[in-house]
Amino acid sequence: MEKYLITGISGFVASHFVEYLDSLNDKNIEVLGISAHKLSSNFTNNLKNIRFNSIELNLMEIDKLKIAISSFSPDYIIHLAAFSSVASSWLDPSDAFVNNTNIFLNIAEIVRSQNIKCRILSVGSSEIYGNVSADEVPLKETIKTNPKSPYAIARLSQEMLSKCYADYYKTDIVITRSFNHIGPRQKDSFVISSFIKQSLEAQKLSNKIKLKTGDISIIRDFVDVRDVVRAYYLLLKKGISGEIYNICSGNGNSLANIIKQIAKILKIEIETEIDPLRIRPSDNKIIVGDYSKLKSQTDWTPKIELEKSLKDIIDYMS
Amino acid sequence: MEKYLITGISGFVASHFVEYLDSLNDKNIEVLGISAHKLSSNFTNNLKNIRFNSIELNLMEIDKLKIAISSFSPDYIIHLAAFSSVASSWLDPSDAFVNNTNIFLNIAEIVRSQNIKCRILSVGSSEIYGNVSADEVPLKETIKTNPKSPYAIARLSQEMLSKCYADYYKTDIVITRSFNHIGPRQKDSFVISSFIKQSLEAQKLSNKIKLKTGDISIIRDFVDVRDVVRAYYLLLKKGISGEIYNICSGNGNSLANIIKQIAKILKIEIETEIDPLRIRPSDNKIIVGDYSKLKSQTDWTPKIELEKSLKDIIDYMS
Repeated sequence: MEKYLITGISGFVASHFVEYLDSLNDKNIEVLGISAHKLSSNFTNNLKNIRFNSIELNLMEIDKLKIAISSFSPDYIIHLAAFSSVASSWLDPSDAFVNNTNIFLNIAEIVRSQNIKCRILSVGSSEIYGNVSADEVPLKETIKTNPKSPYAIARLSQEMLSKCYADYYKTDIVITRSFNHIGPRQKDSFVISSFIKQSLEAQKLSNKIKLKTGDISIIRDFVDVRDVVRAYYLLLKKGISGEIYNICSGNGNSLANIIKQIAKILKIEIETEIDPLRIRPSDNKIIVGDYSKLKSQTDWTPKIELEKSLKDIIDYMS
Repeated sequence: MEKYLITGISGFVASHFVEYLDSLNDKNIEVLGISAHKLSSNFTNNLKNIRFNSIELNLMEIDKLKIAISSFSPDYIIHLAAFSSVASSWLDPSDAFVNNTNIFLNIAEIVRSQNIKCRILSVGSSEIYGNVSADEVPLKETIKTNPKSPYAIARLSQEMLSKCYADYYKTDIVITRSFNHIGPRQKDSFVISSFIKQSLEAQKLSNKIKLKTGDISIIRDFVDVRDVVRAYYLLLKKGISGEIYNICSGNGNSLANIIKQIAKILKIEIETEIDPLRIRPSDNKIIVGDYSKLKSQTDWTPKIELEKSLKDIIDYMS
């Protein structure tokens, strides 16, 4: 058996990762999912190949976590549990820190101290690049990090710990800087799903709608979650321990441009209005990545165009 | 009254800070000390001017901490509690992280969320500079950080959080990068006190002694704790919120050189022997600081020469 322990199993990314594993048509894959929340029952109904089980467990309960990891004895730990909203991290910086950095540290420390032979995927975020200048885009993994939100600080702390464990304790850890991922099932507290949900609701009443937004001039690199989970799998198989890999599309889009694309797909007119509550204390103007390191190590390239991502989210939400 | 809340009150630095406050000859100073450990009773016997009280409290018990801070209503919080041994942080990285970063975050978050009007001194470490090249020495606050131990990572995480709270939440926080401080009462698990303790014990038997050491070629900037606490006081009064200040002597000494000075003071011959247990997985070759930013803001300069520090430690330990 090839055994995968996946944290954050009730989340958006985990569901896609599990589906990806199932699509490999390999009867020898076993998954143990961990989540602090109850798993919705429909989550695993369609799995055809892999063996799947899950438990409810808070990753801060280190004694229970130790038992879970030791009992399952994974080949891979894919650490997807996270407090992943930049916006919410401004409201509760302490919770954001603990539920990014400390939960990761608990896992790394258990693997190290119990001498468990497995590879960990430490999922990080492009937010740690912070405010960069235009000539640094597309961002390579080597540029200076400059985190600007509680979320970004928590992720950079996690990344520094990952590198320390990999470099000095020789814990097997591959590190990612994952850019904004989008796709079906993402919570509508995230920007693209929020835009689409608002648009679909307003569309029922009129073909001219008004969206409430934050700063829509910011440029981000949106990558489809299905491309992201494929990159995670490839990094588990081919990544180098202690190395950091951007996972991104390589393309920048302003939120304003994405709103235009949504309008075009839905055949509606969208006006926007700034909601002061959605303006953050500090926001990075442009984050666009360079995935050449990931490509050269794993042959990965993104396959799903932004338009298809948007259409699939619309289908899912309709 | 001018009210100081001091964490880590049972520690080496806190005792000197309290003595410094007492030496100001001001009857209007009130101190509340917090420590996870019982305070030794002789600690405050000699205080003549300030009003002093202390409580036993673990800084991870956030509900109790909130009550303590709100009840005392400090003007200043001097956060000296820390897991401050680089060597021990390699043995228990998780404990080191929680007892540097998370305990600080608890304080900052209480002050922010309860809207307490006070200034926090966030004490950090020169270890966050990590391995630097010779031409970067003496280190200014602006050079790229490169932490290489669990302790250093924890301190850099704390510093990033301090800056975020100061810059975006407008919490009043002055940040230090304190270089290796030495002086009477430092625990003998720290390098200089360890050398002196071993030397004094061996000296009882012979004038030719053998010291067990780690790598004694490393160069550090040792600054006397009494100069450090004076800098802390001046930063509380004159520092700028969100700014980072080196606190150092500006002089580099190899551990080998310090051993020579100890030998000279004690009039003994010291041979050294590498103890493999004292070699760390990674160690910075040279850390020497530049204190011109602190000086220009507060007029601080170090006053106590290394030789006097060593003599005072020897007197204290004899």
